[in-house]
Amino acid sequence: MRIARFSTGGGVAFGVVEEGEQVLARIDGHPFGGVSLTGERFPVAEVRMVAPMLPSKVVAIGRNYADHAREMGNDVPEEPMIFLKPSTSVIGHNEPIAYPEHLTQHVDYEGELAVVIGRLCRDVPVERANDVILGYTCANDVTARDLQKKDVQFTRAKGFDTFCPLGPWIETDLDASDLALTTTVNGELRQSGRTSQLIFDIPALIAHVSAVMTLLPGDVILTGTPAGVGPVKPGDEVSVGIEGIGTLTNRVVSRD
Amino acid sequence: MRIARFSTGGGVAFGVVEEGEQVLARIDGHPFGGVSLTGERFPVAEVRMVAPMLPSKVVAIGRNYADHAREMGNDVPEEPMIFLKPSTSVIGHNEPIAYPEHLTQHVDYEGELAVVIGRLCRDVPVERANDVILGYTCANDVTARDLQKKDVQFTRAKGFDTFCPLGPWIETDLDASDLALTTTVNGELRQSGRTSQLIFDIPALIAHVSAVMTLLPGDVILTGTPAGVGPVKPGDEVSVGIEGIGTLTNRVVSRD
Repeated sequence: MRIARFSTGGGVAFGVVEEGEQVLARIDGHPFGGVSLTGERFPVAEVRMVAPMLPSKVVAIGRNYADHAREMGNDVPEEPMIFLKPSTSVIGHNEPIAYPEHLTQHVDYEGELAVVIGRLCRDVPVERANDVILGYTCANDVTARDLQKKDVQFTRAKGFDTFCPLGPWIETDLDASDLALTTTVNGELRQSGRTSQLIFDIPALIAHVSAVMTLLPGDVILTGTPAGVGPVKPGDEVSVGIEGIGTLTNRVVSRD
Repeated sequence: MRIARFSTGGGVAFGVVEEGEQVLARIDGHPFGGVSLTGERFPVAEVRMVAPMLPSKVVAIGRNYADHAREMGNDVPEEPMIFLKPSTSVIGHNEPIAYPEHLTQHVDYEGELAVVIGRLCRDVPVERANDVILGYTCANDVTARDLQKKDVQFTRAKGFDTFCPLGPWIETDLDASDLALTTTVNGELRQSGRTSQLIFDIPALIAHVSAVMTLLPGDVILTGTPAGVGPVKPGDEVSVGIEGIGTLTNRVVSRD
């Protein structure tokens, strides 16, 4: 099942994507703990899609592909390295990434697989990690690389409004252990990896993060980016595509 | 005005603290954009106080007192250094700090003044910063010092559940530019500073943070800790007192 979120005019609703991505069947309330439909149906062409989830927190993982750690001159970590992106950084498919040119001169894309948590949990053992997953979506961990190097802490560099595109929807029926992931800029291939290359796999990440902080329904874990990160500039269009999910596309615009 | 939050049995409500801290006058809805009372009144002794705010995000500032930067062997930063604590780390006055002994052997208190944001804002100029402040409360930026050093990123060390005590209430009528702040452990004085010692003052912090990320009503900025940080262990009682606000007290318990 593919779960999207969209603006209906009267508010924001979840919907199940049906009929070759042409129709959204409205979900009654939220998709946690089972989906029931209201019976209302909306043509995708007539609604505005938004981020498929508004998470209370986005927990991101650094250096989780060996080839990316190497390209940044970093060692492979002994345990997952976590940081947070604020909920205010989340945008959806087709929403613009705002480049704050007065504060940074180097903004990179980072294509990633995102895990969406389906229920409140803490101290989740590896073998039960799948039970707490609602599904998967595409993410772009947009990063002001110059500020990341300057600050050491990643918060500012990765925390700007619009620096966490998620979408286009959440795929709930998927084995995410070996999916192809690509990132393109203006149609040119820049990143190409497989989720089987994750140093710490998804169950390990859920166990690690949930041993520190309680995860809430809708919380998102970004699993890290493969090699090939690089800059974008206003006017560029960046797409993160993941096998079995779809493609998340965002245009870069100047914030100033 | 002092605004607290409390559990009524039927849910959680905001209330105005009245009559020498003996009574809570229930607020209709939330305190943003003006307070109106329902007329219901609760004796403080008969309700359970919780954190005075459940923020969408807690933005914390590192190394914002020169004497604390020195005691940790760090330089004074050129601009505010920001990091995030997850909303799941927030607890209130008298709620226990859970020490995760299987993951850390060194947990420190850090007493801080917390600023509570009153309305949605971004790119706030220094001269308008006071307009976006709802009020002030006491905070403890609890930190697993060993993990902070190991991880470099502060997220895990400062992100455990219960590692962000806030309270006991929000004081809305206060000039916060020169307040005495003390931290005690089991009644012994450990930290003693004044908010006039902040390297970056509150308007500068709000301008800096809101240039990166939109702030939402209820979001919290922790302004940094003075010198004198040190460890706690299960059984200890730690109190952060700020002139004109009150005292936030939390007992440390073993999480395991």
